[in-house]
Amino acid sequence: MNHLPPLRAALLAGALCASTAVFAAPQQGTGVAWDIVEGITTEIGPRPAGSPAEGRARAWGEARLKALGFSNVRVEEFKTRAWTRGPESAALTAPYAQPLAITALGFSVPTPKGGLKAELVYFPTLAALEAAPDGSLKGKVAFIDHAMRAAQDGSGYGPYGNVRRQGPTIASRKGAAGVVIRSAGTDSHRNPHTGVTIFASDVTPIPAGAVSNPDADLVARTAARGKPMAIDLRLEGKPFPDAPSGNVIADLPGRDPSLPIILVGCHLDSWDLGTGAVDDASGCAIVTAAALAAQKDGQTLRTIRVLWSGNEEMGLTGGGGAHYVKMHGSEAHAVAMESDFGADRVWQVKFNTAAQNKPLVDKVKAALWPMGIVPHEGLADGGEDVSAIIAAQKLAVIDLGQDGTHYFDLHHTPDDTLDKVDPAALQQNVDAWAAVLGVIANEPGTIGKAGA
Amino acid sequence: MNHLPPLRAALLAGALCASTAVFAAPQQGTGVAWDIVEGITTEIGPRPAGSPAEGRARAWGEARLKALGFSNVRVEEFKTRAWTRGPESAALTAPYAQPLAITALGFSVPTPKGGLKAELVYFPTLAALEAAPDGSLKGKVAFIDHAMRAAQDGSGYGPYGNVRRQGPTIASRKGAAGVVIRSAGTDSHRNPHTGVTIFASDVTPIPAGAVSNPDADLVARTAARGKPMAIDLRLEGKPFPDAPSGNVIADLPGRDPSLPIILVGCHLDSWDLGTGAVDDASGCAIVTAAALAAQKDGQTLRTIRVLWSGNEEMGLTGGGGAHYVKMHGSEAHAVAMESDFGADRVWQVKFNTAAQNKPLVDKVKAALWPMGIVPHEGLADGGEDVSAIIAAQKLAVIDLGQDGTHYFDLHHTPDDTLDKVDPAALQQNVDAWAAVLGVIANEPGTIGKAGA
Repeated sequence: MNHLPPLRAALLAGALCASTAVFAAPQQGTGVAWDIVEGITTEIGPRPAGSPAEGRARAWGEARLKALGFSNVRVEEFKTRAWTRGPESAALTAPYAQPLAITALGFSVPTPKGGLKAELVYFPTLAALEAAPDGSLKGKVAFIDHAMRAAQDGSGYGPYGNVRRQGPTIASRKGAAGVVIRSAGTDSHRNPHTGVTIFASDVTPIPAGAVSNPDADLVARTAARGKPMAIDLRLEGKPFPDAPSGNVIADLPGRDPSLPIILVGCHLDSWDLGTGAVDDASGCAIVTAAALAAQKDGQTLRTIRVLWSGNEEMGLTGGGGAHYVKMHGSEAHAVAMESDFGADRVWQVKFNTAAQNKPLVDKVKAALWPMGIVPHEGLADGGEDVSAIIAAQKLAVIDLGQDGTHYFDLHHTPDDTLDKVDPAALQQNVDAWAAVLGVIANEPGTIGKAGA
Repeated sequence: MNHLPPLRAALLAGALCASTAVFAAPQQGTGVAWDIVEGITTEIGPRPAGSPAEGRARAWGEARLKALGFSNVRVEEFKTRAWTRGPESAALTAPYAQPLAITALGFSVPTPKGGLKAELVYFPTLAALEAAPDGSLKGKVAFIDHAMRAAQDGSGYGPYGNVRRQGPTIASRKGAAGVVIRSAGTDSHRNPHTGVTIFASDVTPIPAGAVSNPDADLVARTAARGKPMAIDLRLEGKPFPDAPSGNVIADLPGRDPSLPIILVGCHLDSWDLGTGAVDDASGCAIVTAAALAAQKDGQTLRTIRVLWSGNEEMGLTGGGGAHYVKMHGSEAHAVAMESDFGADRVWQVKFNTAAQNKPLVDKVKAALWPMGIVPHEGLADGGEDVSAIIAAQKLAVIDLGQDGTHYFDLHHTPDDTLDKVDPAALQQNVDAWAAVLGVIANEPGTIGKAGA
């Protein structure tokens, strides 16, 4: 459908002339958390680890945390291995000419000058690729399909995310010249999902990209026709060393500075394709607003520290979480928590704490029950920004689990933008976090991890 | 969120190893209509008017219609003015650096070599742009926002589509060096909507593009901060003359070849960004499958002719609809109908026919009532592929109105792909069309247009 027949167009032109100046108002929220997400996404935008934009985001965060009344606000810089995107494109060239919506995976190496033109071999699963004879992919590009589906707890990211994390290494081991995967995502838009791949130390890194789900469907339908497939692949992104990154750290001092502190984390870097609204400006907004809300009636007993971590996305073991331990591993911590799963509503809580803390756990559960947040029997494990300090100090952990049904529609795509954040759900997160912090930051007794 | 803490990753790696070879199966349909949409989108893909792909689509259509048992299957080629996309990109450069997801509008002219770097001036509506003083935009780029919302009958495309159709002409008249609009679309994905703009003959064509809704939100939020905005705009698409296009035409002969025929139309060309599944492979699938279904118990009284039109999208007055009149304007037609509004369910029917045809209209209504399809008082007007023959012969028209609530989520975007077609809804369209054709193609009396 293109334009309108004359009669209808004439009628509607009349309607237009009579229209008032009402116009599209993007969804609006209010409050500390919304203002942080709105500010970072509008004034900074994409902020990949090691980029100048990530540096601007640190300066933005430092200024905002000071303005919000935090103490000891400081940036702690570090150097890291990073990766930068280059021009990228792909097309099926046989049996049918079809452009493909593709994006390179982090730590992909560049295709040869002029692109990689090769046979494309379809594997329905990672297991099928693993079963391919060694050397059978020499000079070819492997395509790895899979069946990730949405789940409330995001659990599909474990097994199906492995296609991204491990697939390129396996393809390289089979001799492949390149690898293309179905995005680790649950949407149906032409926005492929990026994210790091992890080449094992004993394999040659190869160009690695992800196509969107509709493009993966097309490849699958084409493969089903049984004719040889060929691809023209251009991915010019590449790794680089010694990139500047850094953490932003700020405290809300407690009444008793001698007590081990409560650490709440998130990450400030984002993938380059979107503006990192749900991954993870929302997390920083939630933990920051909740820390303030927990102190709104006066100082808590314990200090609450906010960590806006650098380079979570490409950090592997050298990101902001590890640097935090280097800088603060000698300070006494009690509990670490992290928000890095979007901005949808909290629906479950998990714990990992010593048996003697049962009264404290019960108090936290009681604070969350009125919000409809249910305890889950599984063990809390924090997340990338706090896992290193948790491991180093055997900290107690509490996870507030968000609804992840739609998280992998957006995760690591261009669609990770402010309009995807529901202000009411964001505020529900703040309220849940504030309820938990209100309990644990006022706990006078020892808090320890299960088995520690 | 990036990767998984070690514990969870180890557990899930186990889950992966135990997984069976079940994998993603794209949504599947069956039958003539589904096979046409699946075939065109898989084996041809994007087929912009005047391109080699549109030529391949004609050959595909000719072969398929012959295989389906149609008579007099032929391609009728013509030359047309067309437009081809080039490299394109945009970024806000002040007050904040932000990449913008942009696509050029059809008949945009290229930006200067090296791109157009200019002040960006925000207008909330087309009316606000019209109110700007003449010459006030000299050397600047105009940004036109608007407030299109989804509607079941797609009626937002009239007034808000005018931002795309008329906005660039108005901006040029004000002296603008370029124009960027909020996409004429109702989705929230980073997929801008293309489509032709129509430069009036008295203005200088300027580079014209559309950004996605999330990007337009970003521009609006940035504009609200009140600081001067600047853009770096690169749109290298350009018009070209004498492009080859063509119609594919096929008949199902009636028992009485002397009676005026029933014409059912759709268009074969698509925009280049998607694979044209809903715009308009579905339309061709629906009218073709319905024509066959109407004859499944034997020949209808009248001949049913299928028109798969060329260059609807960029055709203006020189596309496939006009060429059809040139070639077939001397043949007697009775009724023309068109399907060019996606693949969602038919919910309403409109008529434009002479008063003496009331018994026929009542028979059509009675055939549609059991499907829950309601009569609408408005006048049917066909569509771009059949409007020329309707005007030339004052034909009776019947419009089967589809649910357009989601049509402008996909329209003219990369997201117009097969996965957006619901096989059950597609079949409901075929059933509704077959019911109508079963009545009108067996009508022995004269059928005429209202007022003709």
